[in-house]
Amino acid sequence: MKARAFCLQLNTQKAPEFIDITGWVTQCVAESQVRNGFAVVYSKHTTCAVRINENEPLLLQDMAKFLETISPRNGKYQHNDFRARTVNMNPDESPNGHAHLQQLLLGTSETIPVSDGVVQFGRYQSIFFIELDHPRPREVMVQVVGE
Amino acid sequence: MKARAFCLQLNTQKAPEFIDITGWVTQCVAESQVRNGFAVVYSKHTTCAVRINENEPLLLQDMAKFLETISPRNGKYQHNDFRARTVNMNPDESPNGHAHLQQLLLGTSETIPVSDGVVQFGRYQSIFFIELDHPRPREVMVQVVGE
Amino acid sequence: MKARAFCLQLNTQKAPEFIDITGWVTQCVAESQVRNGFAVVYSKHTTCAVRINENEPLLLQDMAKFLETISPRNGKYQHNDFRARTVNMNPDESPNGHAHLQQLLLGTSETIPVSDGVVQFGRYQSIFFIELDHPRPREVMVQVVGE
Repeated sequence: MKARAFCLQLNTQKAPEFIDITGWVTQCVAESQVRNGFAVVYSKHTTCAVRINENEPLLLQDMAKFLETISPRNGKYQHNDFRARTVNMNPDESPNGHAHLQQLLLGTSETIPVSDGVVQFGRYQSIFFIELDHPRPREVMVQVVGE
Repeated sequence: MKARAFCLQLNTQKAPEFIDITGWVTQCVAESQVRNGFAVVYSKHTTCAVRINENEPLLLQDMAKFLETISPRNGKYQHNDFRARTVNMNPDESPNGHAHLQQLLLGTSETIPVSDGVVQFGRYQSIFFIELDHPRPREVMVQVVGE
Repeated sequence: MKARAFCLQLNTQKAPEFIDITGWVTQCVAESQVRNGFAVVYSKHTTCAVRINENEPLLLQDMAKFLETISPRNGKYQHNDFRARTVNMNPDESPNGHAHLQQLLLGTSETIPVSDGVVQFGRYQSIFFIELDHPRPREVMVQVVGE
């Protein structure tokens, strides 16, 4: 039994952006030499999510529109009221209340079983790192645990 | 420490359908002989979800109605425009944009701790495999890891 | 490789209530002496969720309002019709259909990698136990697995 961690730095280009990291996750599992166990894919950001779905370009557009409906970028959020806020106010603070609420529903991580050396993605499953706020440097982790 | 994988084939009967697989998950953990660790329950499909909630028949009807409100079956999705789509177009393709969007919010897996040989479900917790698209053969996995 | 379980009893004070348990999770991981592996934080209740997001007071108010919009406390749910229900009817039953539906979207657990003895929370990430129903005694678990 062992645990191996991998980290990917990436620069997002737009928001929302669905970055397919299936290939990278598969590579990390191969490199870990874990044959039976699982992989946790984890976002280190509160305005980025990790989700598994189908990588079909028109569907990704549907998802972008869906997220905007759930919590519109130009909606009214107290988190965006920089005159009222006193906590976590940074020079690079952006009005990103919508992104926090979308992330709350999507989630921070996914866990995928590894069996006989194969990451158990189904035929249409891709794993995405999802930028919800605005383009910037980001970080996503994979932890592979098993034998 | 060991990792054991189990796979369940099932034929869904309607959509949405909430299939309670708590008994099967509990059986898998017993069979694995893992006393301390956890179980990952994983859907291999992008239009099926795995979630833990209460198995109360009227609540399941509330959930079905809730999902339909979030993303209606007859809504307008680009993913359903088979004249425009070029990716993943299969003979059995169904207009299932709504199911992908519902699945995006519900999620692909759940992880449940196992302690002293007992799967740590709370009193009202049941785990469901949820069909969101249409009835068909499906597959759900449990990976049990621990000692 | 080992697996260690920890349990926290808490009395919630309102609903929704976002209880920051980041410090407790970090303590559990330290106590487990796991250096590489991960921690599963798990709610034993179908009307409480576990989520990672930013602990900024105005954002927590945005989240409370957002959850109320998604599934209002005073909405119409069959689960709240105590004359029609026959399953899981208890003396302390509360009209909590809204809380079940909110929990369905938020989720029951989060998994966080541990690497070189450090729980891999990002700079703005806090982990919350979220009461969605009404104030009462509750229980949340952490399972730490690794080497």
